[in-house]
Amino acid sequence: MTAPVDTVRIVEVGARDGLQNEKTLLPAEVKIALIDRLSSTGLGTIEATSFVSPRWVPQLADAAEVFTGIRKVPGVRYPVLVPNLQGYERARAVGAQEIAVFTAASEAFNRKNINASIDESIERFMPVLERARADGVAVRGYVSTVLGCPYQGAVPVTDVVRVAERLRALGCYEISLGDTIGVGTPAKARAMLRAVAQAVPMHALAVHFHDTYGQALANILACLEEGVRVVDSAVSGTGGCPYAKGATGNVATEDVAYMLEGMGLHTGVDLDLLVATGAWLSAQLHKETASRVTRARTAA
Amino acid sequence: MTAPVDTVRIVEVGARDGLQNEKTLLPAEVKIALIDRLSSTGLGTIEATSFVSPRWVPQLADAAEVFTGIRKVPGVRYPVLVPNLQGYERARAVGAQEIAVFTAASEAFNRKNINASIDESIERFMPVLERARADGVAVRGYVSTVLGCPYQGAVPVTDVVRVAERLRALGCYEISLGDTIGVGTPAKARAMLRAVAQAVPMHALAVHFHDTYGQALANILACLEEGVRVVDSAVSGTGGCPYAKGATGNVATEDVAYMLEGMGLHTGVDLDLLVATGAWLSAQLHKETASRVTRARTAA
Repeated sequence: MTAPVDTVRIVEVGARDGLQNEKTLLPAEVKIALIDRLSSTGLGTIEATSFVSPRWVPQLADAAEVFTGIRKVPGVRYPVLVPNLQGYERARAVGAQEIAVFTAASEAFNRKNINASIDESIERFMPVLERARADGVAVRGYVSTVLGCPYQGAVPVTDVVRVAERLRALGCYEISLGDTIGVGTPAKARAMLRAVAQAVPMHALAVHFHDTYGQALANILACLEEGVRVVDSAVSGTGGCPYAKGATGNVATEDVAYMLEGMGLHTGVDLDLLVATGAWLSAQLHKETASRVTRARTAA
Repeated sequence: MTAPVDTVRIVEVGARDGLQNEKTLLPAEVKIALIDRLSSTGLGTIEATSFVSPRWVPQLADAAEVFTGIRKVPGVRYPVLVPNLQGYERARAVGAQEIAVFTAASEAFNRKNINASIDESIERFMPVLERARADGVAVRGYVSTVLGCPYQGAVPVTDVVRVAERLRALGCYEISLGDTIGVGTPAKARAMLRAVAQAVPMHALAVHFHDTYGQALANILACLEEGVRVVDSAVSGTGGCPYAKGATGNVATEDVAYMLEGMGLHTGVDLDLLVATGAWLSAQLHKETASRVTRARTAA
């Protein structure tokens, strides 16, 4: 008898969370090529774009064109971010089957960014959740600043728990817990996840780390040990942090996949194809890849 | 009653393992300034240089000048690497009180690099260990390629255990287990450390990770969980890997210290002074720092 395969689902967020924080604006056809390449790596979930207002995020103003242009590989999910009903309508008009909504666990962050309390921010996308439920559209919820906030500093774990629980109660099938500014360390990440998992089942939780302080993989390891099996990452470690200039962005999918496979955790991802995609993307962005694996593998 | 403070000793290897793999040759006075700066950060152990043949490592040909020039802060240890009796004599002539010897756990690596088996390589520095014992000089032992070898690939854990046990029996007060090419992942690092700790007490073991594949901090975390409390690292993540061009070097001391302090593990290191030293060193080397913490902290 063989042991059951322990599987981790990687949610690739590079085309959205990564590119929306890159200085270089890529043309729609390059974004389409990126997502098509990612679709062939074995990744099961690829966040495609964001239907936020182009005034907020000019990098993703071509959301409809990109979503329409990508090859939809059977079995692969292509969620898109939506901030409100208007975004939802735009996403649905081009056939999006899965969406993601977002809020922060930090009161100060919400106030500063959208001039609303946490509760008000959730109320604002309640109509989206209702419409999604009626339409049979799956909704993922992002909670940002779970381990620290650029405005208020520490974020009480109780606030993270409350927000995650609320999103779950409102119908999100999965809650992604994000260390937006990448300040967390393993013991804190573990304690936060453990607290949230008292209120939301672990199978409905994902972790989302930025590598600003180099802690992302260690934090992921701590959370894997705690039982999480969904990890967000971005190929080539794209993105940045508007609150820490020069800082690195999302943890690189290549580095996550390398760690997981090395630990015997199945991801379904072909690392060679992923590395080739990461190297290609960093060339498109005219910057050195932030993935150590891709750097090592592509070194002459 | 307060809980006892859980302490991790960081062994700073940047001035030796880091600089010996940098393309840029620093003048002796800059190396002296580096070590003097490091001495003021609270680090308790700073490997100062290597008395190997200048023909092998031209970067450290000024070992005697550097060792003589540095300020010896009371309470801080300044070990130096020695490969043989000749190096030992040179080190002792300038007053070195502590030395380190090295071998690999990979037969192929030893054959290729010094044309000797593991056992022969150990026999070669036996006279050094005997002299050190007679002189009351403390000896640290490095075992390299503990999680992989550029020539033979996988390295049997039994070989790592055998070499570590041998070095311990020969009088090394501490054995540093090095993933020289940075290919290890947390589960393998943990299993290797656990196996070695069956033969050598955990308090006499250190871990030494290179960040080639971005796994270093995660590997350190796994080893801390296993009980190790001594970690090697290099300020600014200097060094490289001659077997993977363009790859990153030692794990950065700043990133290690940030993680440890965030986990409530006491290091005694002043992170601000460390970051300032790392930023200064990367300027001297004309390259971007490999430390994510220093990058984030010094971003404009």
